[in-house]
Amino acid sequence: MLTVNAIVATSPTAPLVRGTIERRDLGPRDVLIEIRYAGVCHSDIHTVRGEWRDMPYPLTVGHEIVGTVAEVGGEVTRHATGDRVGVGCMVNSCRECENCRAGQEQYCLRGNTQTYAGVDRDGTVTQGGYSTHIVVDEDFVLRVPGSIPHEAAAPLLCAGITTYSPLAHWNAGPGTRVAVVGLGGLGHMAVKIAAACGASVTVLSQTLNKKDDGHAFGAEDYHATSDPSTFEALANTFDLIINTVSAPIDMGAYLRLLRLDGTLVSVGAPPEPLPVPVFALFGNRRSFAGSGIGGIAETQEMLDFCAGRGIAPEVELIPADAVNEAYERVLRSDVRYRFVIDIDTLR
Amino acid sequence: MLTVNAIVATSPTAPLVRGTIERRDLGPRDVLIEIRYAGVCHSDIHTVRGEWRDMPYPLTVGHEIVGTVAEVGGEVTRHATGDRVGVGCMVNSCRECENCRAGQEQYCLRGNTQTYAGVDRDGTVTQGGYSTHIVVDEDFVLRVPGSIPHEAAAPLLCAGITTYSPLAHWNAGPGTRVAVVGLGGLGHMAVKIAAACGASVTVLSQTLNKKDDGHAFGAEDYHATSDPSTFEALANTFDLIINTVSAPIDMGAYLRLLRLDGTLVSVGAPPEPLPVPVFALFGNRRSFAGSGIGGIAETQEMLDFCAGRGIAPEVELIPADAVNEAYERVLRSDVRYRFVIDIDTLR
Repeated sequence: MLTVNAIVATSPTAPLVRGTIERRDLGPRDVLIEIRYAGVCHSDIHTVRGEWRDMPYPLTVGHEIVGTVAEVGGEVTRHATGDRVGVGCMVNSCRECENCRAGQEQYCLRGNTQTYAGVDRDGTVTQGGYSTHIVVDEDFVLRVPGSIPHEAAAPLLCAGITTYSPLAHWNAGPGTRVAVVGLGGLGHMAVKIAAACGASVTVLSQTLNKKDDGHAFGAEDYHATSDPSTFEALANTFDLIINTVSAPIDMGAYLRLLRLDGTLVSVGAPPEPLPVPVFALFGNRRSFAGSGIGGIAETQEMLDFCAGRGIAPEVELIPADAVNEAYERVLRSDVRYRFVIDIDTLR
Repeated sequence: MLTVNAIVATSPTAPLVRGTIERRDLGPRDVLIEIRYAGVCHSDIHTVRGEWRDMPYPLTVGHEIVGTVAEVGGEVTRHATGDRVGVGCMVNSCRECENCRAGQEQYCLRGNTQTYAGVDRDGTVTQGGYSTHIVVDEDFVLRVPGSIPHEAAAPLLCAGITTYSPLAHWNAGPGTRVAVVGLGGLGHMAVKIAAACGASVTVLSQTLNKKDDGHAFGAEDYHATSDPSTFEALANTFDLIINTVSAPIDMGAYLRLLRLDGTLVSVGAPPEPLPVPVFALFGNRRSFAGSGIGGIAETQEMLDFCAGRGIAPEVELIPADAVNEAYERVLRSDVRYRFVIDIDTLR
């Protein structure tokens, strides 16, 4: 066992504190990663505060992880010491069900092993990336191309793949009209990736406050959802709407923005069921879908795509001790667009 | 103007009565059809009883219409006197919007002209098929192949196309697993068509009462939704679920029956929004969609498909004066599987 420095949650209500966690001994197919940067995702906050379910404390979160390979097990073939690598939202899956066999480990029918607060193969609780080191099976370790700035690579592992996957699956590209609801951590990546795919991108944000940013990220159009005329002007317009907002939205209003065979995909979700007016689905044969992160092969594809197109998240680098303040700022939407913890400040 | 015999609703609460309605004079592109049979659709009942919106009485409903061409306008090229023809749920559309141009007149962005209780091009209220004659623009008149028994052809114009269209759009066929929720007028057609497409078909019905019928129609499997074990046994199973039930269903329970990239398509809808647990959409990247009837070209394709495969609805022929009793039986689900009015009894 390896004892490593970490940022630890000790209860749903206490601030995060410095502490230590244990990492398993390196198995033959494991990779030991010296973590350099860890992104701060809204899910981290929901998790440490026990807002989704009861949590096993003490707990370390973080599932946007980049670093350098420090050591590999005897059977590892995919990675070598010194490689720049990343780890996202999952660190294992059953590998046997039809979804795993199809390369869609995120939809593992037995449940994938989440990077934190999950139950690992050895029965222990998984601990996330707000820590100096992590041990991960090589099949769930991604190669991070050198052309992506190291700290900016971290948010790709969750915010990047979570938006890339539905954009790819629903064929965003030249000739398609894509709307992105919410311009936060996920939303700003959705805009950048959709624009790089060649789609015509519209941002639907509560206000016009971030309009200049939206255009800089590649959006052609930007509308305030607080203005009811937005929903009239844009009726029957989009092939694809990526909803990055976890709060409940007026589903009827948003669905009516879809043109023939359009799909609204939620990548965030409120805990309570959303009321869907079914008649809004009848018009234009619309669909309402969900999408969760992406498969491992697809995550690698996304990293390579972003490297090739020069796409990277907008990040604000923070030291380990600023994480509690960063959480408060995330909750106030006061972040442009992703906090990334400089893990060197934890050593 | 032509005054013709019809079955007429005079108020939301009064029984239907015999009466007369007016048909417009034959225009150059119109077809005068002598109606032989008219199917009884649940929508007819909702409409005459004003359950969806306030209705313009007196009103004649019916949108599953078959008959013989009695006369054609001077510019008509698609149909000739004596042809066996049909009319479904719409009798016109704008023909200019992108959906009409794509042959998806059912999704006309200006609203298609419904066969009854719609507003026709001349500003009059459209009147449906519970009548001896109807005048329809030739482009909205379908050819009914002679190999389909005449009275059994009527329900194809709504129940047939409403289920054929989503089965075709979502690629039901060999290797796909399709569930049909509800074995009524629409459901029994969904089973027959999906089985003819080569899909493996499961019926999900409240009870096992109609199990033998379901198998006879082509279902391989039949489960009672009143039995909670159904939802455990069939989790992650179906590529496509066609929901023909208009009453609210437990969306989470049904969505979880879908496997990777599966879609639940509603062709019926409750008036109130349905609560959808978004987390159930995340698993397996599921979709919830709506589908409304089908386009004119697709309706012709469906009629030709049914003729070629020997598929026809199960009907119970009734005289005009039995329609009120038939409505009560529809509401009690006491019909196997579609009432069809013998319009000769109205002459």
